[in-house]
Amino acid sequence: MTIREILDKALAEGRAALTAPEGRRICQEYGIATPGEGLATTADEAVRLAEELGFPVVLKIVSPDILHKTDAGGVLVGLRNAEEVASGYAQILANATAYDPEASVDGIQVQQLVGGGHEVIIGAVTDPTFGKVVAFGLGGVLVEVLKDVTFRLAPLSGDDALGMLDDIRAAEVLRGARGAEPASREALAQMIERVGALVGDFPEIAEVDLNPVFAGPDGAVAADVRILIGEPPREKTRIPREKILEQMTRIFKPRSIAVIGASAEQGKIGNSVMRNLINGGYQGQIFPINPKAADIMGLPAYKSVADVPYDVDVAVFAIPAAFVPPALEQVGEKGVAGAIMIPSGFAETGNVEGQAEIVEIAARHGVRMLGPNIYGYYYTPENLCATFCTPYDVKGGVALTSQSGGIGMAILGFSRTTKMGVSAIVGVGNKADVDEDDLLTFFEQDDHTRAVAMHLEDLKDGRGFVEAARRVVRHKPVIVLKAGRTAMGARAAGSHTGALAGDDKVYDDILRQAGVVRAPGLNDMLEYARSLPLMPTPQGENVVIITGAGGSGVLLSDACVDAGLTLMDIPDDLDQAFRAYIPPFGAAGNPIDITGGEPPSTYENTVRLGLTDPRIHALVLGYWHTIVTPPMVFAELIAGVVQEEREKGNVKPVVASLAGDTEVEEACEYLFDHGVVAYPYTTEKPVAVLGAKYRWARAAGLL
Amino acid sequence: MTIREILDKALAEGRAALTAPEGRRICQEYGIATPGEGLATTADEAVRLAEELGFPVVLKIVSPDILHKTDAGGVLVGLRNAEEVASGYAQILANATAYDPEASVDGIQVQQLVGGGHEVIIGAVTDPTFGKVVAFGLGGVLVEVLKDVTFRLAPLSGDDALGMLDDIRAAEVLRGARGAEPASREALAQMIERVGALVGDFPEIAEVDLNPVFAGPDGAVAADVRILIGEPPREKTRIPREKILEQMTRIFKPRSIAVIGASAEQGKIGNSVMRNLINGGYQGQIFPINPKAADIMGLPAYKSVADVPYDVDVAVFAIPAAFVPPALEQVGEKGVAGAIMIPSGFAETGNVEGQAEIVEIAARHGVRMLGPNIYGYYYTPENLCATFCTPYDVKGGVALTSQSGGIGMAILGFSRTTKMGVSAIVGVGNKADVDEDDLLTFFEQDDHTRAVAMHLEDLKDGRGFVEAARRVVRHKPVIVLKAGRTAMGARAAGSHTGALAGDDKVYDDILRQAGVVRAPGLNDMLEYARSLPLMPTPQGENVVIITGAGGSGVLLSDACVDAGLTLMDIPDDLDQAFRAYIPPFGAAGNPIDITGGEPPSTYENTVRLGLTDPRIHALVLGYWHTIVTPPMVFAELIAGVVQEEREKGNVKPVVASLAGDTEVEEACEYLFDHGVVAYPYTTEKPVAVLGAKYRWARAAGLL
Repeated sequence: MTIREILDKALAEGRAALTAPEGRRICQEYGIATPGEGLATTADEAVRLAEELGFPVVLKIVSPDILHKTDAGGVLVGLRNAEEVASGYAQILANATAYDPEASVDGIQVQQLVGGGHEVIIGAVTDPTFGKVVAFGLGGVLVEVLKDVTFRLAPLSGDDALGMLDDIRAAEVLRGARGAEPASREALAQMIERVGALVGDFPEIAEVDLNPVFAGPDGAVAADVRILIGEPPREKTRIPREKILEQMTRIFKPRSIAVIGASAEQGKIGNSVMRNLINGGYQGQIFPINPKAADIMGLPAYKSVADVPYDVDVAVFAIPAAFVPPALEQVGEKGVAGAIMIPSGFAETGNVEGQAEIVEIAARHGVRMLGPNIYGYYYTPENLCATFCTPYDVKGGVALTSQSGGIGMAILGFSRTTKMGVSAIVGVGNKADVDEDDLLTFFEQDDHTRAVAMHLEDLKDGRGFVEAARRVVRHKPVIVLKAGRTAMGARAAGSHTGALAGDDKVYDDILRQAGVVRAPGLNDMLEYARSLPLMPTPQGENVVIITGAGGSGVLLSDACVDAGLTLMDIPDDLDQAFRAYIPPFGAAGNPIDITGGEPPSTYENTVRLGLTDPRIHALVLGYWHTIVTPPMVFAELIAGVVQEEREKGNVKPVVASLAGDTEVEEACEYLFDHGVVAYPYTTEKPVAVLGAKYRWARAAGLL
Repeated sequence: MTIREILDKALAEGRAALTAPEGRRICQEYGIATPGEGLATTADEAVRLAEELGFPVVLKIVSPDILHKTDAGGVLVGLRNAEEVASGYAQILANATAYDPEASVDGIQVQQLVGGGHEVIIGAVTDPTFGKVVAFGLGGVLVEVLKDVTFRLAPLSGDDALGMLDDIRAAEVLRGARGAEPASREALAQMIERVGALVGDFPEIAEVDLNPVFAGPDGAVAADVRILIGEPPREKTRIPREKILEQMTRIFKPRSIAVIGASAEQGKIGNSVMRNLINGGYQGQIFPINPKAADIMGLPAYKSVADVPYDVDVAVFAIPAAFVPPALEQVGEKGVAGAIMIPSGFAETGNVEGQAEIVEIAARHGVRMLGPNIYGYYYTPENLCATFCTPYDVKGGVALTSQSGGIGMAILGFSRTTKMGVSAIVGVGNKADVDEDDLLTFFEQDDHTRAVAMHLEDLKDGRGFVEAARRVVRHKPVIVLKAGRTAMGARAAGSHTGALAGDDKVYDDILRQAGVVRAPGLNDMLEYARSLPLMPTPQGENVVIITGAGGSGVLLSDACVDAGLTLMDIPDDLDQAFRAYIPPFGAAGNPIDITGGEPPSTYENTVRLGLTDPRIHALVLGYWHTIVTPPMVFAELIAGVVQEEREKGNVKPVVASLAGDTEVEEACEYLFDHGVVAYPYTTEKPVAVLGAKYRWARAAGLL
């Protein structure tokens, strides 16, 4: 039987699982080794088979009348030579006869007994977000108690499969820790790759469990195979990238905007949107739509978008949910590119049908819909504030998106207080249509955007996201705050959005595989967003700490290790060069402790050396507030030195931790304004953002 | 031989390790089971012994002439019955004769072959900071690759030993995960306890390794024993607690202070100290000491402290290191209680002798010395700013100490910008005399201090610290930022202070055992310090999230899990009670999502219900900035409700995360001023500080 036939038969019989022989047959087709076996009808045949397979072997009765083989004395394990097999054969037949004299016996199965080497698990599951996913872990306690397992999208390349072997915590074990023989990495990677190919080729295979797989230096054998089948997951329909780009470009750079439900009355959403568009400085045409007003805020109003005598790129909806469908029909007929669906009262309040209805209308007309249930969106290069929140105008390199309105408000407040330079802030709300993939596709080619930060609770199309993210991260960092990280969190996400609770380990592994920088929390996402666009890309892994406070140096070292950064092992000549600038009781090495009472020149000399020596790739500065080098003197000095060296081509990330009285806050602000990432009262944040930059640079293949 | 005799013999022979029989003998004395064994001189005797010990057994030749037993064919493993033992006996003798016909043979050792069950490691080491420490871990890969091991001070109680079994990550394994038989917890705990007793009783035992120990349901046997010996660690001399308290009280509440090196000249440290004492509002007497001035800042100056015609409690040193020794002699002769040794130029610059000299002088006179190499200290209840930094006057409940001056400055800046209420800020610098133990002893009984936060890079006397901390944490939280957490960090600490690099896992386990709340970073320590004194102690584990922003709710849930908090499983009646206040599409359960557009009354009703229902023990609030409930309305409302309920006896910790535009910053400030911990733009911080409060409450035995 072919695999197709096996699956069709099982599906036709309404089975959810394949039998063990079916499973082994499929493995055979895909070159996945299972224990050798054969059917013997005489004792001599059993001995010959056992000799071919290699000892030890297992003997099992094959009889349609004996279901519980062990009860019938029909199984013997670990027979070690011809003699034992021959007598075992006779024994089993005798046992069977004693058990059921009427039983018809087809023969005795002789099976190779595998074991020894390393016990691992290789499998595949169908994830609700990502579809077919392969899993790999060490067997036994490690995977079952410590959950030491890793996931990848299926199908996958042999290199990706090899990478999985290193992604478990106990990776060292497979390499032969404690004098054990190493497992064949090639054999394991091949088996993972083949499982990935299998579930890729046959989407009706819902789950594969090769458990245990025994892996030695020469190969790997799947001792037990379990295959579950079911409905293949529905294919996601995808809009071609060029089409998305065309749609998104009309939405982010509209020549004209209609405000459905524009109002002159303060406090109304339709009034806030109008004011923000006008006060934000948007230079395109604005068409207030209101059946009862002749003009609104000095602009001629129209009863319907159909009445607007010009092309309309974007329609911002500021009307109650109940009135949306007919208005959206008109918007569709008008050929509008984007419907910004601010109204709530759709799926998030249980009105799933209402949401389905507007999705259908938008799709029928080719209108891309943002939302519903959003605050709107900002795009600063166009001075565009299509939102009921307050305008925001600090232009800069980061585009932020949020699934939740509350988080969107936090983004806005944080941006304003830190003067974060922003290209876009976008609410995606219920994500009934436009999602992160669409936005990534636009931000990828948007020269104003140098980093993307996304808050998300779920992904509509996990694979679409991974595909888009992989493309984008080659050019700019993508930061993701995935809410619902924990089991409890996932439960909350479920109750909030109706999204299926994803297993965070799957998300984590696959987002990392996509090259995304995952932020552990909201504040981290905001700080990464603020800092990453300011930092040049490091050209290598060598990080050097230069500190005026020894105490900060120790904490900065701790933070570097936490952030996965490599403290450079300073070569002797460089050590001597640093020593020339610092007091004899200062500590060279790394951290370089210039000691606390030093004048600005010591900071300047050491930082300049750090920037000019090509073996150093990034600097972490620890400043200690003293009378000799006050905070603003330090800030101006460092900003100047970094600027001068950048102009000379010495372009490296520099981050600083400032310890001191409140003047250090002003100094940090000055440094940020001059492109140097600097934080007061914390040694962790500056290092964490540098670590995030490095994670991106590594994922982008730039290191 | 007694243990004493074994150790004396080994020490006399200059050995660093005991022999295996010596090790087993010692185990026997302490009731630590090792495999049974005996010496046989005939085959019959070997068989009888094997039958007594139980099969399988190991046979080993015993001959002074045969060192490499295996090479001589003198070892047989796994003999399973009398026959095998008898023939094995003969075989070994024959092998030995063939190997060396001249060898004299004492007999053949018959040893029980142990194995099976769980393989664990039990040991003890001599830690440079904490002295004798016991270790426990699962054997094999788990301890060697994943470093899954835990430490405790030795000796320890049986309960503490039982606790160790649960402190490893793979604890579940011992309980019989995956259908395996569980290990006897009592037997393992007993063995740990006995190893602890052994190294406690015999400090010359430097290291014990029972590895592997095989543990089954009925007991545990140490299959291999290795004992290393060496110099016993030096006993630390400790000042009695009452004496410390008397000394520290004179230092923190001095009736008079002399400033050695007081100066009228701006920019001099002796001038800053004078100004800070006077401007800070210190009400005791101040005596400027300066050989050349008649008066300084309006106060009569003295040539020497000897000339002061009053008692002096504290002398603040503001003179160069070289002039310290004679001045300290005078201070000692004067009967001063505390020398605040601001000058640097001692051990931190390599001047170890100079530091030893002043330690000796101070000790000889019974003067307690703070520093050297410090910024001084603050004690706000006495309006005391004995420092060259700027005064600080926001009185409150937290006492902070720092080993590093830079970190001290960060404490000061953070305090000022957040208006953190402080009782004391103390620099300990080189810790040549006064250390954290002394300070804890004072803060323990100081009613002005409700929490203690300490930055430290090392501990002079780890056990002294643990003893003091255990006492203090029963009454108030002790927060510790231990710098040099990581391997790299520890290296930096080494270069900075000359402190021995401690293994962070030992620190971590033992600090936790002491009930200390460890802060992962500087900013965390500062935020814990700021928030913990404001929060009442929770009375149970049930945490409830009430949020206006569903998105924040998910992130707050994630943060709760990260912080080790328990999201309450809301009983049906309580769920109904909450539902009565929230819109039908809001989500009850936990988080309670009141939805975004709600008026103040919804926040008020749900928060009040959370405060009054006795089954709820702590609240986490998520606020979403809307026009309906603006930030300051929310802040005033919550502060009011919390205050009202506190007055009615509903005293619970309440923390809040505010998502919104910049007005939320003012709202957070207002909430903090009114005793409600609140942070803008972060869902992590408010939950992290609540988690820290819970960690303390659990450690203090209050939950």
